[in-house]
Amino acid sequence: MKDYINQNQERFLKELSEFLAFKSISADSSFKQDCLDCADYLVDFFKSIEMNTKLIPTKGIPVVFAEKIIDEKLPTVLIYGHYDVQPAFKEDGWDSDPFEMTIKNQKIYARGAADDKGQVFMHMKALEYMYKNNSWPLNIKVFLEGEEEVGSTNLEDFILENKSLLESDFILISDTSIISNTQPSITAGVRGMTSMELTVKGPKVDVHSGVYGGMMDNPINFLSHIIASIKDKNGKILVPGFYDDVIEYSQEQRKEFEEVFSKMPSSKEVCEEFEIKNLVSEPGFSPYEGASIRPTFDVVGIQGGYQGEGMKTIIPNQASAKFTFRLVANQDPNKVKNHIVDYIKSIAPDTLDLAFEFSEHSASAYATNLNSKYYILAAKAMEESFGNKCLPVMCGGSIPVASMLKEHLNKETIFLGFGLEEDNIHSPNESYGIFNMNIGIETIFKYLNLIASQSK
Amino acid sequence: MKDYINQNQERFLKELSEFLAFKSISADSSFKQDCLDCADYLVDFFKSIEMNTKLIPTKGIPVVFAEKIIDEKLPTVLIYGHYDVQPAFKEDGWDSDPFEMTIKNQKIYARGAADDKGQVFMHMKALEYMYKNNSWPLNIKVFLEGEEEVGSTNLEDFILENKSLLESDFILISDTSIISNTQPSITAGVRGMTSMELTVKGPKVDVHSGVYGGMMDNPINFLSHIIASIKDKNGKILVPGFYDDVIEYSQEQRKEFEEVFSKMPSSKEVCEEFEIKNLVSEPGFSPYEGASIRPTFDVVGIQGGYQGEGMKTIIPNQASAKFTFRLVANQDPNKVKNHIVDYIKSIAPDTLDLAFEFSEHSASAYATNLNSKYYILAAKAMEESFGNKCLPVMCGGSIPVASMLKEHLNKETIFLGFGLEEDNIHSPNESYGIFNMNIGIETIFKYLNLIASQSK
Repeated sequence: MKDYINQNQERFLKELSEFLAFKSISADSSFKQDCLDCADYLVDFFKSIEMNTKLIPTKGIPVVFAEKIIDEKLPTVLIYGHYDVQPAFKEDGWDSDPFEMTIKNQKIYARGAADDKGQVFMHMKALEYMYKNNSWPLNIKVFLEGEEEVGSTNLEDFILENKSLLESDFILISDTSIISNTQPSITAGVRGMTSMELTVKGPKVDVHSGVYGGMMDNPINFLSHIIASIKDKNGKILVPGFYDDVIEYSQEQRKEFEEVFSKMPSSKEVCEEFEIKNLVSEPGFSPYEGASIRPTFDVVGIQGGYQGEGMKTIIPNQASAKFTFRLVANQDPNKVKNHIVDYIKSIAPDTLDLAFEFSEHSASAYATNLNSKYYILAAKAMEESFGNKCLPVMCGGSIPVASMLKEHLNKETIFLGFGLEEDNIHSPNESYGIFNMNIGIETIFKYLNLIASQSK
Repeated sequence: MKDYINQNQERFLKELSEFLAFKSISADSSFKQDCLDCADYLVDFFKSIEMNTKLIPTKGIPVVFAEKIIDEKLPTVLIYGHYDVQPAFKEDGWDSDPFEMTIKNQKIYARGAADDKGQVFMHMKALEYMYKNNSWPLNIKVFLEGEEEVGSTNLEDFILENKSLLESDFILISDTSIISNTQPSITAGVRGMTSMELTVKGPKVDVHSGVYGGMMDNPINFLSHIIASIKDKNGKILVPGFYDDVIEYSQEQRKEFEEVFSKMPSSKEVCEEFEIKNLVSEPGFSPYEGASIRPTFDVVGIQGGYQGEGMKTIIPNQASAKFTFRLVANQDPNKVKNHIVDYIKSIAPDTLDLAFEFSEHSASAYATNLNSKYYILAAKAMEESFGNKCLPVMCGGSIPVASMLKEHLNKETIFLGFGLEEDNIHSPNESYGIFNMNIGIETIFKYLNLIASQSK
């Protein structure tokens, strides 16, 4: 396998650059055709390695599905990934065109390099090797969606309509990171999420801030009051009921987490990397705990009033903001969402109107069973590839598909990702190490073979 | 005079439409040439009525100056106005192109119709009449700036460099409103202002809200905390020292103000006009008091993070907002500004950086001496034109030039304006009544003659 990777390295990078060139930005409907083109590209690939492949329409961007059933008695893995990417424009601060892959210091730079095209590509190349060597160790199903970055809008419907197609023994997802290239790890938990956009509406038009300032409420000022009332300056969320179902970990468990966190970049290193003065965290918790085992509230975007050059003396007619709440184990996104909406309504003034828009970015948190054979063998494959102990990591991000698949298919998910924190996913200059791609292909191959041999 | 207005009505409207067609938007430098063209148009007009006219350069947009000195012993009036306008784009919600004047129900619709081109135009036509009838009653100086809507950036330098040119007995400005077309009034006080833009800077790039949410401070969340900490939900400003020098009016004086306010649109009418549920005001004050004799804080615009379609799961790298504080008599804009900046710095966290940008929108409040002959005769001219008692009104807007001229030329300003609250200045569908234009021309002419006859 290692030889195959070495001998084909140049071709792999060329093919990956083709895959990364599709502007499959799901958040902006003007890129719909790019998403479709990218899906077609994937269909062609899976057909080329003789998997049964189809493009399955949804109400939005279609799902690419491919399968190879070699023996009903062998285990079946369902590999999930996503081919859509976050928005990216050169002028956001990229050093090169986000859709023209460039290589610098053994790193691939492009939107989607790590999240998630580069990691989907590892599976493609592992499968290609099995095909070329006629060595399929088990039954494979691959299932790639095109709407992950917009909250997997149509995924639940898709899963419900295709339950038998998706039947498997376990689910494998490569959309996460390792601690470092010398410290392998597996994501053992991801946070959930609930999101919404809030618009505060004032006068029907912008009005003069001199004539009406002091007699009319200002939508921006009040939206700010709402935001400040949701989370205090210390990071504690003030929404009644918000923390009700949050898992409180024992001191012993927290000590174990801290051991893992100690292998990750220090606070000082994170601050230096992002040029910030200090990290924060909810009182009583460390920054890494704050970003993994605790729920949070972040405003993703805000806008209102005059944003051009100079000044304009107005009270704006409205202001809006996009809210994201990350949730942890046991929090029900719908219940939490209702708490938040009730609270915002309770503090709203009688002078302004509120309008909520609920995004499909909603998911429960997910925690992996560390005693399952699927996890144990994944850790074993990692340890064989990297040569040292693999650690389970609680992760701050959300992978809504995991809790969704658990709910509807009742199968365990293993997060076998190979990214690094430094990959700048969702930021300009997203990258993915060539080392990570290669060790990922190798480890996925190893893992699938371990599963197959264990089941014999 | 009335006959002249009637006979020339059609020509007046055609000429006004030419004046309003210039996109003299001072806030946006891409409209610089439109401002210069508008200035040239004014120069040509004043030359056509044989006034000594010149375009006086400043560091920004030039000043149009015209004078007619008929007798050194007669009084000299300095008429001030501005030919720049607020930004306006059809898509902001205008029913017609903001720079193509349209007439509907005896109202002129265009950006600048009331603020201030339409009101400058009244002076132009009053002067044209004097010229055509060879009946100049006193010495006239006209002084029109092109940067009023961006805080009269270069006006102070201009005044200091042209003190003798601007020498006069009193200053006349038509850039205000009357209570209604059946209730004449004169603005007897305007508020001052201080403005700034605040940028809160976080990580050097947008980061993933999952990975870092809970360990990194969010610039939007914190900007909201700052805004909410400046003014509480009830409208009270929390900046220490902010109210130190604010004039507290006696109950008797406030009763007089209330009498004037009672002639203005009721709270219910204002709410209906702007489709809002309720007015607000600082505790202990009425809405009209809140908008005239009390200082305020309004956020004019805010932006940060992802504002496009859908969601993007980021902590944004920065957020910024434009702040306007309206000030009242005795508040020193610089002193207040320093209080605000000190306060914001005192509540800033040690995790984020702040950057202030100070706009030239800064001015002291101004109050007219109601016992001066200039005020008394202005009220008399109004009463003769309208046929009923003229009331002095405390106004919420700011006319920085008044306090500036008072400081450097030590002369009284009379605000003889003819707009209406319903004119939508600074909003889409700005308008000015044809009735108001006509009665304005008539009253200005009357007033200048009253001043001249009084001084004989």
